Amino acid sequence: MPFTYEYPRAALTVDCVVFGLDVDDLKVLLIQRKLDPHQHQWALPGGFVRVDETLDEAARRELAEESGITDVYLEQLYTFGDLERDPRERVVTVAYYALAKLSDHRIRAATDAERVAWFTLDDLPRLAFDHAKIIERALDRLRGKVRYAPIGFELLPPRFTLTQLQRLYELVLMQPIDKRNFRKKILSMDLLIETDEVEQGVRHRAARLYKFDRKKYEKLTRQGFSFAI
Amino acid sequence: MPFTYEYPRAALTVDCVVFGLDVDDLKVLLIQRKLDPHQHQWALPGGFVRVDETLDEAARRELAEESGITDVYLEQLYTFGDLERDPRERVVTVAYYALAKLSDHRIRAATDAERVAWFTLDDLPRLAFDHAKIIERALDRLRGKVRYAPIGFELLPPRFTLTQLQRLYELVLMQPIDKRNFRKKILSMDLLIETDEVEQGVRHRAARLYKFDRKKYEKLTRQGFSFAI
Repeated sequence: MPFTYEYPRAALTVDCVVFGLDVDDLKVLLIQRKLDPHQHQWALPGGFVRVDETLDEAARRELAEESGITDVYLEQLYTFGDLERDPRERVVTVAYYALAKLSDHRIRAATDAERVAWFTLDDLPRLAFDHAKIIERALDRLRGKVRYAPIGFELLPPRFTLTQLQRLYELVLMQPIDKRNFRKKILSMDLLIETDEVEQGVRHRAARLYKFDRKKYEKLTRQGFSFAI
Repeated sequence: MPFTYEYPRAALTVDCVVFGLDVDDLKVLLIQRKLDPHQHQWALPGGFVRVDETLDEAARRELAEESGITDVYLEQLYTFGDLERDPRERVVTVAYYALAKLSDHRIRAATDAERVAWFTLDDLPRLAFDHAKIIERALDRLRGKVRYAPIGFELLPPRFTLTQLQRLYELVLMQPIDKRNFRKKILSMDLLIETDEVEQGVRHRAARLYKFDRKKYEKLTRQGFSFAI
């Protein structure tokens, strides 16, 4: 045990909240812990930060090791430092979050994870540590963000119907949205480009397909535009 | 040196970005470092987190010790963990920020701070560590926030003119705002209550005084309202 310091030091970890958008559901990725504390309990993928890696690197590494997911954009969420959040000792964790399309990712448990699975948010198992609280905060952030930035466009096909876009917002906000208001607002933002195409292979009247005008969005963002639903 | 661990550990610090709103200026609070590294350089108030205090407690304690400021609402900003940000060793810092009315606070340097002072943002001295980067991020957050939440109403007198409110936004956003558009937007949000009173003791035509409808704001926030300027 060769690492000695003048004052006691907290251990530093990272934890990752990965939201997965399913056809009709918003899920979160959990792993089942192989080791104590909280052995066999479900928890967020995460682990100790190495002294020679950045926080972002640690988050990506732990997520990849424990769940097999390597290509999501993790954004730093918040750092949790309550005194009793880990039964072993003082552990401060830097939490990250991401929103991904569930079907894009194959998951596979390894290292400290016995199992890995997507859970529906309103049917979570009992979680280790303060991970329920971390997920709550990630959801708050996601819902706050979706109101002023078009997060989530990446999760739709390149050409989509307004119904698909509305469903995405309803899933993330977890509440129904009035169709007429939604259409009025989203079209008035002038961020969608109407294409010549309509849906294919549907029984009902085929709906118009739209694509997202990323250039215009970036320009508006620079001007201090706020995307509010 | 009695604290020994199996793996090397980063040191954990907190740093505080306190923005002070002056009559006509947005400033930031800096201290001059008494100790190495970066002795005599200007830096953010901050220091090491004790193993028996939360991150929020550490931020409040360090700010009070080094600057004398005790009553601002510090919000966690971001955690900075670049490998080379401190010349001594790996130090991870949890940054906090606050927006305060400059005239409400008396500042007084103590402990590790030789001096403490408010600096205008476009005239900062050379800063220790990555503190210039931390201030940049705090400014981004503040400007993002002011676009969708009425942060800053606490900084105005209980009854204020629309010109005072516009000036507050201009200071925080650091750009002029068109008067007609600002009034139209701010009044259409229906968050201001027009009072029977007008300004006192002014030479020009006395302007109407308004107060902020906090109850309505809280209700709208719960409904997913977004405050966009």
